[in-house]
Amino acid sequence: MDLVIVGSIALDDIKTPYGEEDNILGGSATYSSISACRFAKTGVVGVVGQDFPTQHVDLLKANGVDISGLGIEDGKTFHWKGYYEGDMAAAHTVDTQLGVFGEFDPVLPEAYRKAPFLFLGNIHPTLQMSVLDQMTDTRFVGLDSMNLWIDTTPDELEQVIRRVDVVFLNDAETRAIGKKLNLNAAAAEILNMGPVAVICKRGEGGASVHMKDMRFWAPAVGLMDVYDPTGAGDTFAGAVMGYLASRQDHPIEHLREATVLGNVLASFTVEDFSVRGLLRADTGAIRRRIEQIRAETVFGGLEIH
Amino acid sequence: MDLVIVGSIALDDIKTPYGEEDNILGGSATYSSISACRFAKTGVVGVVGQDFPTQHVDLLKANGVDISGLGIEDGKTFHWKGYYEGDMAAAHTVDTQLGVFGEFDPVLPEAYRKAPFLFLGNIHPTLQMSVLDQMTDTRFVGLDSMNLWIDTTPDELEQVIRRVDVVFLNDAETRAIGKKLNLNAAAAEILNMGPVAVICKRGEGGASVHMKDMRFWAPAVGLMDVYDPTGAGDTFAGAVMGYLASRQDHPIEHLREATVLGNVLASFTVEDFSVRGLLRADTGAIRRRIEQIRAETVFGGLEIH
Repeated sequence: MDLVIVGSIALDDIKTPYGEEDNILGGSATYSSISACRFAKTGVVGVVGQDFPTQHVDLLKANGVDISGLGIEDGKTFHWKGYYEGDMAAAHTVDTQLGVFGEFDPVLPEAYRKAPFLFLGNIHPTLQMSVLDQMTDTRFVGLDSMNLWIDTTPDELEQVIRRVDVVFLNDAETRAIGKKLNLNAAAAEILNMGPVAVICKRGEGGASVHMKDMRFWAPAVGLMDVYDPTGAGDTFAGAVMGYLASRQDHPIEHLREATVLGNVLASFTVEDFSVRGLLRADTGAIRRRIEQIRAETVFGGLEIH
Repeated sequence: MDLVIVGSIALDDIKTPYGEEDNILGGSATYSSISACRFAKTGVVGVVGQDFPTQHVDLLKANGVDISGLGIEDGKTFHWKGYYEGDMAAAHTVDTQLGVFGEFDPVLPEAYRKAPFLFLGNIHPTLQMSVLDQMTDTRFVGLDSMNLWIDTTPDELEQVIRRVDVVFLNDAETRAIGKKLNLNAAAAEILNMGPVAVICKRGEGGASVHMKDMRFWAPAVGLMDVYDPTGAGDTFAGAVMGYLASRQDHPIEHLREATVLGNVLASFTVEDFSVRGLLRADTGAIRRRIEQIRAETVFGGLEIH
């Protein structure tokens, strides 16, 4: 096992300007583990209810995700109902049913505890800390969070941030945790807490990597149609963590390439509902989009006097 | 004369989280002409009132802007009062006094009419068309606009867009003119009207160039403090047009480099009120920021299987 991912596994009802689908496979750990396991041996830690369709479990397995950390409990699977409008920049929640996820108490299988890489998906900081504490040989930890935890459990969240290597946040979350309105200044404040990098997810604007002595920016893949943005950020973080785990000796040296790969995998996710777009991404298509991003950022020398 | 710029010349009262200054030199043509004339012989077309301080006229001249197209009329100079809050992404207008700008009827000096490059700053589309019609040998035209004209004079604006080579817009304006929520799709609609490129200004997110067969993205210079964003977009467009005018034979081939230069010049403008930051930018500092952007976008090869 190279990489352990903890997060939500969900059934979603989603409506976008492009369509509406109910009871589709979703959840942060779903997107990030399918994305990561293309590049590294990945195990998922999560919980679902008795209503979780067997075909979804089979889909995770068939795509290479180790599911020995997946618990099936009495009750309902975490269910999210939401919609997107206009430019689809923000998700609007209609209903959230935590189900068995409300009692989630992650216990890692023995085989997971020695994994060198860990990705703490967007769950309660206390659960993130519990997972981190169960790992015995972790060398590199990534963390995602959201406004809910920033607002309600800021101290617990900061305790986890102090122990991780990379944090994945969107621009509003970066400003909120760093307590600065300027994004670069906010990222610098978070770096002062301990992480070596803040990776800021900017949707259509791509992603920026902030480290003490460097910044990197990769545009998103330029798509003419985004069908459903759900899972884009999780797919992104999964690809980054998976690629870094495949380059274990010096992960941080590959952070630029990993970030580009994250943008590329996320671009497939948003081209369809659930994980269908992500599953369609073959290696050739991934490589073409990587080179597309490269071509979109290269410029020549300037003659100025 | 390489480049003619038409736009507003104003006195501004501005408040930002970093300070407050009254009666300072502003206006779209002011920022864009000072920015452009570093790279090409630039003449400005505009109007001010009798109250316009002589030292501002001297400042334009001293920095190399040709002011033979600047009219001084009986009345007051265009005056804008506004403020920025929070992340300063949006300007809030408190008061606008058009003064002599309300009767602006641009008449170009003979020496301007043969200029090969023209930048139509953000003024009424009918005035933009009038200026365009006075040019006899124009080979390359850039255009800026704003929501006011998109909402109130969409047909007149589209007539001008059909006759220009490059349009400078922010993301909301691109969506509004292209009538698509997806930015890439909206830019494609504008390209169908005639221009060879849409340059989308994204503030902190940098700028993207959209052409029929390529896209280019340059991040903004990463600043820890933005003192006053006023004039950033005008400075950007001025630098782009000025650099293209300095590469007259094949301007479009230099659009990537020009866009990077635009981001760099804009980064100096926002570091102080009025044009002070822009005036402090020396060639060495400009070159360093160009290479900073290059370093922030380079990434290596990926090993994926």
